[in-house]
Amino acid sequence: MLYPRFIETNEGAKLKFFEEAILMFKKEIRVVGFDDVASPRAPGKKVLLVGVITRGGSYVDGVLSTEITYDGLDATEKLVELLNRTRHKPQLRAVMTSGISFAGFNLVDIRALSEETSLPVVVVVRKRPNIREFIEALKKFEDFHERKKIVERAGRIYRHKKIYFQCAGLSPKDARELLDVCTTHGNIPEPIRVAHLVASGLAGESKGRP
Amino acid sequence: MLYPRFIETNEGAKLKFFEEAILMFKKEIRVVGFDDVASPRAPGKKVLLVGVITRGGSYVDGVLSTEITYDGLDATEKLVELLNRTRHKPQLRAVMTSGISFAGFNLVDIRALSEETSLPVVVVVRKRPNIREFIEALKKFEDFHERKKIVERAGRIYRHKKIYFQCAGLSPKDARELLDVCTTHGNIPEPIRVAHLVASGLAGESKGRP
Repeated sequence: MLYPRFIETNEGAKLKFFEEAILMFKKEIRVVGFDDVASPRAPGKKVLLVGVITRGGSYVDGVLSTEITYDGLDATEKLVELLNRTRHKPQLRAVMTSGISFAGFNLVDIRALSEETSLPVVVVVRKRPNIREFIEALKKFEDFHERKKIVERAGRIYRHKKIYFQCAGLSPKDARELLDVCTTHGNIPEPIRVAHLVASGLAGESKGRP
Repeated sequence: MLYPRFIETNEGAKLKFFEEAILMFKKEIRVVGFDDVASPRAPGKKVLLVGVITRGGSYVDGVLSTEITYDGLDATEKLVELLNRTRHKPQLRAVMTSGISFAGFNLVDIRALSEETSLPVVVVVRKRPNIREFIEALKKFEDFHERKKIVERAGRIYRHKKIYFQCAGLSPKDARELLDVCTTHGNIPEPIRVAHLVASGLAGESKGRP
C-alpha cells in the first residue's frame, strides 16, 4: 500500500472531524427542564411551573411557564399542552423534570408526557426517593390508586454519578448520555439547575438545591 | 545583556499570563440584569421585576425578583432594597437594567440606585430612545417634574456597537468594557438577555427582543 501511514492519519482525522461534529451537534441540543415555584401547603391553589430551555449544558434559549393546581392531578395535562403549543417545540429534543411531583403531590405521568409530546423525558433527583414512604403519603388522596399507578409507571430509578434518574421514551443508556451532555456546572443538568434558580428566585430568592 | 531574547520571551509569557488571569477574572464577574414581566396597562397593579445574575457573559448564577407598582414610582427603592438584602450582594459587581422605565412609567433613578447600592449601573436599550417624546408622555402624571428629573439624571445616551447605553457609577469607557465582557450571544449582554427570556416566559412564553 502506498503511504499507509498518511492514509491512516487522514482517515483518523476524518473520523475525528465527524466525531467532533456529532459532539458539537449533541452539545447544542435543546432540552427543557421544569421546576415549580415553592408554595405553602394550599390545596386547590395555582402554582407556577417554570420550564427553562437550554442548549445542552450551555446557555438559556427560552423560558416557558404554566400553572398547575396544588395537590391536583393536572401537571401531566398542563405540561403536554404547554410543550405541544410552544414555538420551541420543533427544536426541542428532550424534557427533564425535577422529580415527578410538583405543587404538593401533583404527579407527572412521565410515560404519558413522553408519548403525548413525542419527546423523551428524564426525571432528575439529587437523593434516591423512598418510593414506599412516598406511596404511603399518597394514601390521603381519594384517587390514591390512580396516583400510585403514576408513581409505578415512572419506572426504575437509576443512579448516574451523583444523581438519580428515571426515564421514559429513551433507554437508560441514552438518558445517561443526555445527562452528561447537559451537565456543566456541578451535578445537576443545566435546564434543571436554571429552572430551579428561576423558580426559587420567584419565591423570594434563589437558594438551596433542586 | 545575557540571553536578551530568552528574557524577553519569558517576560512576555509572564505578562500574557497576568493578562489572561485578569481577563478570566473579568469574564467571571457577577452582574445582575433586570427586566419586567409585561402587563396590560393597569395603574396601581403589582408587576414583577426579575433580576438574573450571570457570571459575566456566561452561566446563570442566581435569580431575584421584586414587585413594583404599575405607573408608580417605587422601582428605585424596591431595587435598592432587593440588592442590599440579597445574599449575592458581596459578589455582585454591577447592575444592568433593560431601559429606565418598568411597569408603565415606573422610572429607575440610576444615580440613586448606584449610590445607594455602591454598584455601577448600566442601562441597556436596543433602540436610541426619543427622550423628548418620552418626557412628553410623562406630562400626564401629577409628579411630572420629579419624573422628568429622573430621566434627565440618567444622563447621556451612548452608542456601543449595536446597542445604546446610559451609565451611573462608572465611566462610559468601563461601561463599554463591561458590556463586551457580558455579551456572548447576539448583541444584548447575558444578564439582560436572560432576564428578558425569564420575564417574558412568565408572561406566557419567551418571545421578542429585550
